Amino acid sequence: MNKINVCFSPALYEYYADNSTVVVMIDAIRASASICTAFMNDVQFILPVAEVEEARNLKLQGYKTAGERNGKKLDGFDFGNSPFNFTEENIKGEKLAFTTTNGTQAVNLVKNDKHKNVDLVIGSFINISALSEYLVKQKKDILILCSGWKNTVNIEDTLFAGKLAHLLLQKNEFEIPEATNLALHIYKNAGNSRFDFIIHNSPRLKSKLEFLENDIKYCLTEDLTDVVPFLKNNKLHI
Amino acid sequence: MNKINVCFSPALYEYYADNSTVVVMIDAIRASASICTAFMNDVQFILPVAEVEEARNLKLQGYKTAGERNGKKLDGFDFGNSPFNFTEENIKGEKLAFTTTNGTQAVNLVKNDKHKNVDLVIGSFINISALSEYLVKQKKDILILCSGWKNTVNIEDTLFAGKLAHLLLQKNEFEIPEATNLALHIYKNAGNSRFDFIIHNSPRLKSKLEFLENDIKYCLTEDLTDVVPFLKNNKLHI
Repeated sequence: MNKINVCFSPALYEYYADNSTVVVMIDAIRASASICTAFMNDVQFILPVAEVEEARNLKLQGYKTAGERNGKKLDGFDFGNSPFNFTEENIKGEKLAFTTTNGTQAVNLVKNDKHKNVDLVIGSFINISALSEYLVKQKKDILILCSGWKNTVNIEDTLFAGKLAHLLLQKNEFEIPEATNLALHIYKNAGNSRFDFIIHNSPRLKSKLEFLENDIKYCLTEDLTDVVPFLKNNKLHI
Repeated sequence: MNKINVCFSPALYEYYADNSTVVVMIDAIRASASICTAFMNDVQFILPVAEVEEARNLKLQGYKTAGERNGKKLDGFDFGNSPFNFTEENIKGEKLAFTTTNGTQAVNLVKNDKHKNVDLVIGSFINISALSEYLVKQKKDILILCSGWKNTVNIEDTLFAGKLAHLLLQKNEFEIPEATNLALHIYKNAGNSRFDFIIHNSPRLKSKLEFLENDIKYCLTEDLTDVVPFLKNNKLHI
């Protein structure tokens, strides 16, 4: 029987990583939703980069650049990390270099993991049903990798992990270790008021509500798209 | 206002560590309960050691030795990691060298953390009320450090963290970050059938039930003792 595990922080990845696993990278608010939105609007591909300078150099080579540090848009970049940036008008046919505090760091962790034969896909609420269909078809172990917040555990990625595990368990049987059960409990307790639950449980997000409210609501909306971005040759494609 | 934070794995400690914090080391099943039981039965002091060989050398210097790896007693050691080993008859007046897969590793992490001015105390269900009284009196930030299982997140330490946070919030106001809210949700969902909840949520513990059931039940019993072991000069005392 295949397993669904949940890794709550990129800093724990090495203790959860295994061969022949599909890793689902989640940075529920906001990188995952931004990446899916860009593909929904026909970006050519996305190059996740860890360093700001690397993205700046790619801009000189014709890439569009998007990114933030601590939630703020970077100087000289075309876009920040709000999913509302990645409209068809802004992004169609473009190559995009993308760097964020947490999300692209997690992608790079998997990308640079030479010892494991892992696939990486991007998961967000906006593609969650298509993603769960895709994952069931792989017939592999699944590792939901939460980007967290600067390597600490966050509420929104945990909630997403719980919802995804719940959807997968409706489609198939899986082995469920304790970390996955933790996420399932959080999903269960969130109920239908997901936005209120997240704001109530995260002083960090509550403090940013003034400028993030619309983004958060968008990022929590299910099934806006069927795209399932995956990593190949160090780039994200669909 | 002081803060209660929860660190779900020793491998995340560096991202949660802060100056002037009281760190509560928990390895709810079984190291924390064993340590508290040893002090309840008048052990002189406990020296947490990371390496098995170090404990073996201390035995030659008159220490009693206790420890396990992967839940199994170590060859040549006086005791394993079952709290039932640490009777008055076995331990009164003795110096004890102690090494476990997860618990003493976490203690050593804090012990070797030269940059922070932290206090370390041992928390378990068997001393939880005395511990919460002690912590409130310190008027400091509190970091509940879960030992986890080989650096992965476990259910029993998370449940303990939630219960301790719940007790502290009954006594005082604290700032509650999202990791602490996650633990509070787990505590809430566990309800009064704590043993059943843990076994139901942890295939790891369920698979060991045959030889761990009595130990687990003991480790989940509240308030058997008022001792609050603390680290001083690299040794645990009361």
